Amino acid sequence: MVVKVHGSPVSGATQRALAVLIEKGVEYEFVLVDLSKGEHKHPSFLSLNPFGQVPAFEDGDLQLFESRAITQYIAHTYADKGTPLITPHDPKKMAAQSVWMEVEAQQYDPSASKLMFELVIKPMFYGKPGDEALIKEYETKLSNVLDVYEARLKESKYLGGDQFSLADLHHLPTLNYLKGTKGWGLFESRQHVKAWASDIMARPAWLKVIEPLQK
Amino acid sequence: MVVKVHGSPVSGATQRALAVLIEKGVEYEFVLVDLSKGEHKHPSFLSLNPFGQVPAFEDGDLQLFESRAITQYIAHTYADKGTPLITPHDPKKMAAQSVWMEVEAQQYDPSASKLMFELVIKPMFYGKPGDEALIKEYETKLSNVLDVYEARLKESKYLGGDQFSLADLHHLPTLNYLKGTKGWGLFESRQHVKAWASDIMARPAWLKVIEPLQK
Repeated sequence: MVVKVHGSPVSGATQRALAVLIEKGVEYEFVLVDLSKGEHKHPSFLSLNPFGQVPAFEDGDLQLFESRAITQYIAHTYADKGTPLITPHDPKKMAAQSVWMEVEAQQYDPSASKLMFELVIKPMFYGKPGDEALIKEYETKLSNVLDVYEARLKESKYLGGDQFSLADLHHLPTLNYLKGTKGWGLFESRQHVKAWASDIMARPAWLKVIEPLQK
Repeated sequence: MVVKVHGSPVSGATQRALAVLIEKGVEYEFVLVDLSKGEHKHPSFLSLNPFGQVPAFEDGDLQLFESRAITQYIAHTYADKGTPLITPHDPKKMAAQSVWMEVEAQQYDPSASKLMFELVIKPMFYGKPGDEALIKEYETKLSNVLDVYEARLKESKYLGGDQFSLADLHHLPTLNYLKGTKGWGLFESRQHVKAWASDIMARPAWLKVIEPLQK
């Protein structure tokens, strides 16, 4: 039975789930949820995710939502397939990956995704410029976070350790959307952050995820 | 070797880590970090957590931070001790727990902790009332989240399934701080949310965590 992802190619959270499926080489069916038509608020989608946000995921009778829960489920379930993205057999390595997954969710993403909203989503989908005061605020917060990343990545090739893991992968959608905006300077000005971002954004699985956006 | 928690008894994130250790019956040493003296920004603490936030955790030479990564590490490492708080041997149950842990972190906590800041932290530590417009905003957001919780808890005794798990436990600090504020009405007005909150707040391990706050 093929797993199903209900989502939108432009949604960062959907991209996160797809990146994991492609890294793992897991066959999947993509069910388009048209956000412009508000399909994520229709009863049929709300039965998959009561919060009305993409993606939702199905594996047989198992229904999941929240992108980071979906990625963890896939990485655990298909542990022996494709790229190893977590190391549950090594509790200390797993703990480090878990710390940096939480850092992404609690420290990085709150600033990065709001900055992305001002610099990308507002101009692209609402046809208006981002709020300069908010941009400044989120840039300052993100800058502080990236100082810690720079120190970490000076010592460790990837955030979770010496191997690419979910802790890195979860950053890909915001990195991709911020690249090409003036916010990208925060990443480019830090040598190790810049090298890390270039490295993970060049992964074939990720290039495949963003292929539909290039058209 | 006894594990160490560096933190403050008033910090919700510290409380989260302590609750898990007590549930599991794991002996620990508590190292007080005096937030009022800014000890969490001192170099010695920053070497444990570069983000300068409590708690930090040590298990031999393993150093961790981010409360939700600490709780997961303890729950995995001491799986056979005390209360089972996750079910890694059952991938489908684990996936549901993982979904609701992410819901706590991504949907519930952003509103609940900001509401807590306005209703509790500002009056208690800064001696000024919360901002009414912000209180209204966070109450509205939290109310929408709790509507989903009410539906979930009508079907399932706990968020992650039929057993208490980390998915419930992670909520305890904000529940505890919001109880006794006007924000508590959001919880009390929902029958299943109210019963769930009363149940998990009455757990002996949690009562032990908050004992120092009663004095």
